[in-house]
Amino acid sequence: MNRSKLVQQIRTKQNYLCVGLDTDITKIPKHLLDTADPVFEFNKAIIDATKDYCVSYKINTAFYESQGMKGWESMEKTLYYIPETHFKIADAKRGDIGNTSAQYAKTFFEVLPFDAVTIAPYMGEDSVRPFLEYENKWSIVLGLTSNAGGNDFQQLFVQTKAEGIPEKRLYEKVLEKVASWGTPENLMFVVGATRANDLEHIRSIIPEHFLLVPGVGAQGGSLEEVSKFGMNHDCGLLVNASRAIIFASSGIDFAKQATIISEGYRNEMSGYLR
Amino acid sequence: MNRSKLVQQIRTKQNYLCVGLDTDITKIPKHLLDTADPVFEFNKAIIDATKDYCVSYKINTAFYESQGMKGWESMEKTLYYIPETHFKIADAKRGDIGNTSAQYAKTFFEVLPFDAVTIAPYMGEDSVRPFLEYENKWSIVLGLTSNAGGNDFQQLFVQTKAEGIPEKRLYEKVLEKVASWGTPENLMFVVGATRANDLEHIRSIIPEHFLLVPGVGAQGGSLEEVSKFGMNHDCGLLVNASRAIIFASSGIDFAKQATIISEGYRNEMSGYLR
Repeated sequence: MNRSKLVQQIRTKQNYLCVGLDTDITKIPKHLLDTADPVFEFNKAIIDATKDYCVSYKINTAFYESQGMKGWESMEKTLYYIPETHFKIADAKRGDIGNTSAQYAKTFFEVLPFDAVTIAPYMGEDSVRPFLEYENKWSIVLGLTSNAGGNDFQQLFVQTKAEGIPEKRLYEKVLEKVASWGTPENLMFVVGATRANDLEHIRSIIPEHFLLVPGVGAQGGSLEEVSKFGMNHDCGLLVNASRAIIFASSGIDFAKQATIISEGYRNEMSGYLR
Repeated sequence: MNRSKLVQQIRTKQNYLCVGLDTDITKIPKHLLDTADPVFEFNKAIIDATKDYCVSYKINTAFYESQGMKGWESMEKTLYYIPETHFKIADAKRGDIGNTSAQYAKTFFEVLPFDAVTIAPYMGEDSVRPFLEYENKWSIVLGLTSNAGGNDFQQLFVQTKAEGIPEKRLYEKVLEKVASWGTPENLMFVVGATRANDLEHIRSIIPEHFLLVPGVGAQGGSLEEVSKFGMNHDCGLLVNASRAIIFASSGIDFAKQATIISEGYRNEMSGYLR
């Protein structure tokens, strides 16, 4: 899916919600465990319940890999069940030397029909480049993450030797440098929502790029602040909620509750869209 | 496998060679393509041909994922075919927020019987911690990588604001900080061999830890320099070669050539072991 189609979906559906399918088999309602593929049955119900109130789904590959080959099958079936209209993200945090990243890109963009994959930046340009070579596919590179460990390295002040006094943090350098490898048409960044105050600053570095913002809901970020400081002329935001939606209820009403929560996000987002 | 068993294998077999199973289906000998599972058939032959001359195998998960579910199956079969005596590494470069890293740890340490998994450090402590909680399992965290992009961020000078003049590079800070999260019994580091001059310095930061050194062979590192500057009292090295061994020949003699190359590495390593 290209940028203009994504923006059109956001305008039409009046939201920029991404529903995170972090489908932990130990947390899904008990009555689904008797089915042949409980993870897929759960995801199917969640997708049916939320598709009118979101523009994107994010599959957290870790929860599928941990079920072995069966998990991989559930992931594939889920992916094909997501409507054509929705932007499909593999939250996989991949990245390796060029020939290996090329294999990961093949996995998520050719073997599987994802629109985007999340990527860790530590190994630099040749670890991201192979993903950028696919037309209408997206690399979503980690910028600033919302977890506690995000402070360990991302907030360090950095410089190259020639620059003198350091004035940039690592995550700022990452945003700047990675942005130079692609365009706002094939590159997004993960920016943690629990640091909404940083968003205004981040927008001064990368005004055009879409930001994937996790951490609203269970991780505690404020949707209002994210929207106020993160939005650009094309919206430029995909705000993810996973557990807050998919595990809103652990009973037989889980899908109904997922509808209620996602509809709530949609209504709030609709008010923020300019 | 715990550290003393690994060291014992190295002493007994007089080498610290890790054979990288980066099994690219487009590069394996044509005559194998008619079999039911060409990737597994190839790996089986390579393992038979090299097991006497190495102590470890490293499965590059990207090359299996890119074959879809069938690839995952080939990976599992390969893993179970590796002898008990050999240290089994999932080269997967994983790392995410705590609850997600816990799923990855489950995948590689419970669902699959790997001894170790490679991890990207960008997301900090809670992204590594779940892997460290498994007894006799190992986290191999990216320190300094040998690819061109390794310079983009790893070599930047960093400081925290209070520290004044920056004097450490990001990769040094990563080695120091990550080392404080675990012990030399459950933590190793990836250190690129093409920078053998840095190894002496790295040893001053982490004298005890095992280093996984890729980049010897196809990526151009010198085994002699790596061994001279990287070895510690327990050897402390696993030197990986992938393409140089497994694709030594693309003909029907591929296994024989893999034996010759790996035996050559073993003989050279035997001379460096103190």
